[in-house]
Amino acid sequence: MTRFLTVISVKEAVAAAEKIAPPVRAVSVPVEQCAGRILAENIAADTDIPGFDRSIVDGYAVRCSDTTGAGDSAPALLSCAGRVMMGENDTQLVIGNSVCAYIPTGGVLPAGADAVVMVEYTETAGDTVLVKKSVSHGENVLMRDEDFRCGETVFLPGKHLTPQDAGVIASCGRASVLVADKPVVGIISTGNELVPASVVPKPGQVRDANAPMLAAWLYEYGCVPILYGIVGDNREAFEDVLERAVPECDVVLLSGGSSKDDRDMTAGSIAQKGSVLVHGIALAPGKPTIIGTIREKPVFGLPGHPASAFVVLITVVRPLLDKMLGLSKPWIPSVKATLAVNIPSQRGREEYVRVVVDKGVATPLFGKSGLLNTLVKSDGLVCIPAGFEGLEMGSEVEVILW
Amino acid sequence: MTRFLTVISVKEAVAAAEKIAPPVRAVSVPVEQCAGRILAENIAADTDIPGFDRSIVDGYAVRCSDTTGAGDSAPALLSCAGRVMMGENDTQLVIGNSVCAYIPTGGVLPAGADAVVMVEYTETAGDTVLVKKSVSHGENVLMRDEDFRCGETVFLPGKHLTPQDAGVIASCGRASVLVADKPVVGIISTGNELVPASVVPKPGQVRDANAPMLAAWLYEYGCVPILYGIVGDNREAFEDVLERAVPECDVVLLSGGSSKDDRDMTAGSIAQKGSVLVHGIALAPGKPTIIGTIREKPVFGLPGHPASAFVVLITVVRPLLDKMLGLSKPWIPSVKATLAVNIPSQRGREEYVRVVVDKGVATPLFGKSGLLNTLVKSDGLVCIPAGFEGLEMGSEVEVILW
Repeated sequence: MTRFLTVISVKEAVAAAEKIAPPVRAVSVPVEQCAGRILAENIAADTDIPGFDRSIVDGYAVRCSDTTGAGDSAPALLSCAGRVMMGENDTQLVIGNSVCAYIPTGGVLPAGADAVVMVEYTETAGDTVLVKKSVSHGENVLMRDEDFRCGETVFLPGKHLTPQDAGVIASCGRASVLVADKPVVGIISTGNELVPASVVPKPGQVRDANAPMLAAWLYEYGCVPILYGIVGDNREAFEDVLERAVPECDVVLLSGGSSKDDRDMTAGSIAQKGSVLVHGIALAPGKPTIIGTIREKPVFGLPGHPASAFVVLITVVRPLLDKMLGLSKPWIPSVKATLAVNIPSQRGREEYVRVVVDKGVATPLFGKSGLLNTLVKSDGLVCIPAGFEGLEMGSEVEVILW
Repeated sequence: MTRFLTVISVKEAVAAAEKIAPPVRAVSVPVEQCAGRILAENIAADTDIPGFDRSIVDGYAVRCSDTTGAGDSAPALLSCAGRVMMGENDTQLVIGNSVCAYIPTGGVLPAGADAVVMVEYTETAGDTVLVKKSVSHGENVLMRDEDFRCGETVFLPGKHLTPQDAGVIASCGRASVLVADKPVVGIISTGNELVPASVVPKPGQVRDANAPMLAAWLYEYGCVPILYGIVGDNREAFEDVLERAVPECDVVLLSGGSSKDDRDMTAGSIAQKGSVLVHGIALAPGKPTIIGTIREKPVFGLPGHPASAFVVLITVVRPLLDKMLGLSKPWIPSVKATLAVNIPSQRGREEYVRVVVDKGVATPLFGKSGLLNTLVKSDGLVCIPAGFEGLEMGSEVEVILW
């Protein structure tokens, strides 16, 4: 049991968490379901994209030299040799001097042509097409391989995939794609005072807000949460649930009761079954956090207050999940804002303050710890780094949105 | 068939789309699965939260008047009457003058006490507790109903729920919650040139990027996409699929081939089976968009280019989905940025330009329409309103992130 009761920095805690992250597990998903997932393979174009010179407008395929000087008053007169059909490559259709062919958007530029005149700048008189605008070489044409070249790497592993990426991956010939599998994260709530949402609390009892909050966040973050319910401050019952959760999950979160007795029980059980790597982080809120392992599985003891649990979740647990997902750069929605007032802080610990953001101005929502209403009334968190005694009114800050 | 071939403003198109939105359908989900969904009922606290005066630290419950003037050199000496047990309400334990009781974080403040001294500021000597810091009335205590009052409305319908909201809803006594049901959105790809991702395109053919992109976006936005595959420019085959999709879906998106012929076929079929309300929007890219209904179901004809389809999806289809979800205010992730260069635009149409955002500076990625690479290399879109001839370098813009 190392570092027991020794408070370490957030940076050290994150390094400890990342070190125990299980390796990325890849899974294949249909391309239309890949958005929001983390890519676990290289994606390269398997053909040139597009595979042919392609018109990007409805109009006439021409030799640009035939349109030189063309205008409203002096149209170029071209003879229409036919029509390009969508999805077909008509090798018989050849554009010679003073010849053109109708081409729809997306059609194959016929041999001999080097540009397309938009239909809006033309008129027809029988088989003759009057072109009223000159075009330059390649105008209104997407050239073969202009988008992606065959073999070109399009995406690297670790990318957080967007819907547009799904479209491009399909264009690269992939109906399915390897992404990081969803980490399975167990949640065990501990504390004699806790009752589930369905029970009306008696005096002394409170409903368990942490487990649904953690599960909801994990689900949105691309994990599979498993709720193991509430166990009281009874070491035997707690260890029974822990023994069940460890083999079923990749990571186990213990949503701690808020008392010291409860935290001590949690730490004792982890130490007995595995090892406690961290107990106490220079983080506010979130100091009484435990990081450990049981049979190679990361186990976190989170503080009991919902706001504290949430801060630990995003500052310490998230980097571990990111490592398990193979994410190449953290994906944290945030906005810049200006601080409305001074925020004092205690040097030596990283502090997270809940703020409301309105028109680019961040106003802290101070309040007693344990309050739920500041958690839902705020828009996000501002971090005061450990080396600071606070942030001054007017400073530009990054607000981590939630 | 009204407004056929008449270009209308984006605002009018959005109004037309919102007008045909089917009503919100509510569905019950477990509270731990509600994040990201749109609330479809009122949530009120069913009890006071907390339901009792609750300590927010580990320490000693005291009468604050007994600590007046207490300090390191002159501690107040109190007699310890016992210990508050977590989750219990010990009515026998009463704090009289010069008396205190150990109380863990989350414990019920015993009768007679009005504050808690943190354990860090105390020392014990047998049954005597030395208090080295004075506390004020209510210090370190969360008062009964300080968070939420019984009956108080906590959330209104239409809220986009966060993980923290899930925790609060559970605290309000709700193990499940009514949210807007996921709209079922069918996607039919049309165009003779289209082949699926699994097929290597022949000259003239391109892979269908739109359907996977649209499906992925819809899935992330909280819809259930159904892919109906690709139909060629064959009116009978197209109408067969349309007849199948309309009863199975709440909304149908036709991911158009990019040619005029194809768009005409789409409009013709919608007009024959229902009505075309809009054909053409003053929007770039995205002009050749169709909005119609078939047997009360909204049907959209989207342009063929992926970037155009995406712009129509977020500017015109999204407001309809928001209405169907009962969303009280649009939920559009965006950041403010400064334009790196002038962006010219054509007055009279709303224009969306793809931009890269780096350190608060937005740089447009100009490129031919139909390119996929500008879609994935960009971070988002900047809107140039219809009344502008462009935006100047240095202007502050809102970038809609993707």
